Amino acid sequence: MPELRQNFFTKEWVIIATERAKRPEELAMHHPPKVVPPFVATCPFCPGNETKTPPEVLRVPVDLVQPWTVRVVPNKFAALSPTLQPTRTIHRSRRSISGFGVHDVIIETPDHSQVTALLPHLDIANILRAYKSRHDALSHDARIAQVTIFKNHGKDAGTSLEHPHSQLIATPVISNQVRQRLQQALRHYDEFGECMFCQMIEEELEEKQRIVLITEHFVALELFASPTPFCTHIYPRRHMASFGDISSSEIADLARTLRVVLAKLYHGLDNPDFNYTVRSAPAECVGVKYFHWYVSIIPRLTRVAGFELGSGMFINIVLPEAAAEFLRNAKVEGAAGAGSG
Amino acid sequence: MPELRQNFFTKEWVIIATERAKRPEELAMHHPPKVVPPFVATCPFCPGNETKTPPEVLRVPVDLVQPWTVRVVPNKFAALSPTLQPTRTIHRSRRSISGFGVHDVIIETPDHSQVTALLPHLDIANILRAYKSRHDALSHDARIAQVTIFKNHGKDAGTSLEHPHSQLIATPVISNQVRQRLQQALRHYDEFGECMFCQMIEEELEEKQRIVLITEHFVALELFASPTPFCTHIYPRRHMASFGDISSSEIADLARTLRVVLAKLYHGLDNPDFNYTVRSAPAECVGVKYFHWYVSIIPRLTRVAGFELGSGMFINIVLPEAAAEFLRNAKVEGAAGAGSG
Repeated sequence: MPELRQNFFTKEWVIIATERAKRPEELAMHHPPKVVPPFVATCPFCPGNETKTPPEVLRVPVDLVQPWTVRVVPNKFAALSPTLQPTRTIHRSRRSISGFGVHDVIIETPDHSQVTALLPHLDIANILRAYKSRHDALSHDARIAQVTIFKNHGKDAGTSLEHPHSQLIATPVISNQVRQRLQQALRHYDEFGECMFCQMIEEELEEKQRIVLITEHFVALELFASPTPFCTHIYPRRHMASFGDISSSEIADLARTLRVVLAKLYHGLDNPDFNYTVRSAPAECVGVKYFHWYVSIIPRLTRVAGFELGSGMFINIVLPEAAAEFLRNAKVEGAAGAGSG
Repeated sequence: MPELRQNFFTKEWVIIATERAKRPEELAMHHPPKVVPPFVATCPFCPGNETKTPPEVLRVPVDLVQPWTVRVVPNKFAALSPTLQPTRTIHRSRRSISGFGVHDVIIETPDHSQVTALLPHLDIANILRAYKSRHDALSHDARIAQVTIFKNHGKDAGTSLEHPHSQLIATPVISNQVRQRLQQALRHYDEFGECMFCQMIEEELEEKQRIVLITEHFVALELFASPTPFCTHIYPRRHMASFGDISSSEIADLARTLRVVLAKLYHGLDNPDFNYTVRSAPAECVGVKYFHWYVSIIPRLTRVAGFELGSGMFINIVLPEAAAEFLRNAKVEGAAGAGSG
């Protein structure tokens, strides 16, 4: 029987379409085998081609004598420009701001042939440290209102560049989507006196059926009203509004958690195209009691069509409980050490 | 220089990324030539295969002796079921409603090889009449809160069925996306005493540069903060909150307008995949002074990636003014009669 479920955080409805339901394995990608070389002479992100990117803003390790493992560089085709001033114009119904902003590329590894899901967790920790370093630096710039960290993996997820990389865009405005999530969370806090994310995490830990993985500091789960198949959230178990609040031991644990979840998707669904994004309270809301940051991983297994665009509601053809069970059971090397709840 | 523009209705920001800008013709699809037969024996929507669909709920013409030009049938793989009762369950953080709803397929023509953009406008008027008939009937059902009419054309727009068709899903809830647009519009009305859509239309008609087409009763335009390239809106020029308020002469004019806009996209961009949707005030808001229905046509020329998913902001690589100019100049037979403003 189909069911409508309401996202607790956004209040948006999702149709869980059991009549169209697929078994999780039916959604696997079945990529043709492809050999990717570890070095591509024309790739601007490969070692030796460092002059093909704009000058780097961050390097790990910082010591220039060592080979780098992570580089952060300005996006050569940046959506926004750091040299403009954010000037607001209001003319009748039209509101605009000059295109001030920062657009970084985080080159995740020197190895062109790697996929993030198969990197050692120590390398993923370096990527996360680069995210945090840039997130913190930009959040302290008074002209920046919001920092969005995201990754596009595969063509259906919006990238054509093979070399593993993620991106960060810092904007002089808070997006309406983020503003509305903050407002919903604040309304909940004002009514019930608790963080709605903390409440949901506690309930899910008790009920277990939508849990994918539990580690020392994090929990990975499918939302009750998950909008798309295998959309997986990773929440810190202690209350933190901003990604900038993460401690160094938590970064190490998040690296292990993210790696296991990505590897479960990689092995279970044959390297699906996916996006992930860090949803964090913006700088002006650091330390609030009502919001809770998390990582949202969105495999791109189905297409957004006219109903989703026209209504905002999604039709999910995989029961979130079935997706969680499938991912709990997906075997990956190194996962046992992370604990599987 | 890049620019951030704010959608007047949703308040969401859009990055107009001029540094990544494409000329409109660079986005054309370049489909390989493909011969589609007018009849496919295995197609459930082709004439003679009427028993392969669930029993029809509407037929044009109603006279069973005549061959049909439009059929409306229940979707065989419906996302929601009309035989359930909408029962709400609240259990801790989880809200759900049993999957009551109606899911129709509108078969637009008996000819398998047609594309909607090339149908005679009299045939499109029949399709629109079928939309209105089902919209009105379902809006009078007290269990239905929202009726979403939409079309998916092409694989990137979420359809694999070639035979021209559109769909309608009636839900027992108002989606949060629609609710928030209504709230923004109501806030504007309360502050300024006018419909924000009427205000925008008046301004755009004066400024001309984002106008695609003006007909007797409608105006087609690109939004100042258009989220995606060639996203085109068709607004009725008189104030109407609900699609159900459309008159029969307006239906005839909308058919001509929709046909010309779809044909401009078809010829100008080489038959792009697209969605369209009718955005209308839900049944409980019929007759309100603050909302204004419209048709939104969304060509699927670029991919939604991690930044859009993570922030809600879109990056548009075509200046809306350039898209409007391109579509104004795109030649289609029969367009002159519709007037081009």
